[in-house]
Amino acid sequence: MSLDTLTDLFVHELRDVLDAEKQIIKALPKMAKTAATEELKAAFEEHLEVTEKQVERLERIFQELGKPARAKKCLAMTGLMEEGSELMKEDADEQVMDAALIGAAQKVEHYEIAAYGTLATYAKQLGMEDAAALLEETLEEEKAADVKLSELADQINAEAQDVEDE
Amino acid sequence: MSLDTLTDLFVHELRDVLDAEKQIIKALPKMAKTAATEELKAAFEEHLEVTEKQVERLERIFQELGKPARAKKCLAMTGLMEEGSELMKEDADEQVMDAALIGAAQKVEHYEIAAYGTLATYAKQLGMEDAAALLEETLEEEKAADVKLSELADQINAEAQDVEDE
Repeated sequence: MSLDTLTDLFVHELRDVLDAEKQIIKALPKMAKTAATEELKAAFEEHLEVTEKQVERLERIFQELGKPARAKKCLAMTGLMEEGSELMKEDADEQVMDAALIGAAQKVEHYEIAAYGTLATYAKQLGMEDAAALLEETLEEEKAADVKLSELADQINAEAQDVEDE
Repeated sequence: MSLDTLTDLFVHELRDVLDAEKQIIKALPKMAKTAATEELKAAFEEHLEVTEKQVERLERIFQELGKPARAKKCLAMTGLMEEGSELMKEDADEQVMDAALIGAAQKVEHYEIAAYGTLATYAKQLGMEDAAALLEETLEEEKAADVKLSELADQINAEAQDVEDE
């Protein structure tokens, strides 16, 4: 597709983030399985449910646009996922792996914060108020997920540090 | 390397972000060349200088750790860069391309915000106050760059929208 208008770019980026969300849905169960700390495992499982709702919101926006909800391979998320997979293969102490998983998850959250921030801005510029509200809702969820991961990191990094001191 | 301790993870992530910065240094001149809006071109050129100083800070931290400043391929940044390259190949209106470039750059900024946020937390946990201060300094620069891009987006998205209305 050619990017002649801001609407073209909006659709282009919606397709990108739809694929990103689908990749995340595949990865979260693996991350939950790898996590040793119960709260972290639960956070990943909970975020899976949130992500499924976010996909539904995207589908509603495609409907509003009268376009098929067709995903376009998100190369950036593919890279983030490859990095996460490599990390999970490392020979690691349990607490250190949990700290690493949080770092990887926060990188994913930040990709989404950037993507949804941009999408919400486009929707507002295009006068699509309903779409903008849906995108803002997801944006706030991603920011909240990032804050929650930072809180978990405080506890888990301290435990990882204790491993070092033993 | 195996991730037995939080220090191992800290070094692992430092190597990752060092490679990420080097990839960004290669990409910024192309982004500046592609940008049509003068302020955006200038923002990319200015960020190149900032990024070079950020690499020097990383090298100082490696020195403090007594480790060689060896980069480790950052797969996530490779993905972000591939996505950016694909984007720059699209047949696009000038203003729409500028809007797209800002979106791509903000995704890169957010990767760095996540990476430096995590690294600063590790440094503090490890009692490396000097390293933590250097990492916080870079983190604040990345956040400021993101805010600046959002401000530019307000102007450029409106111009891209005008294209649509013509």
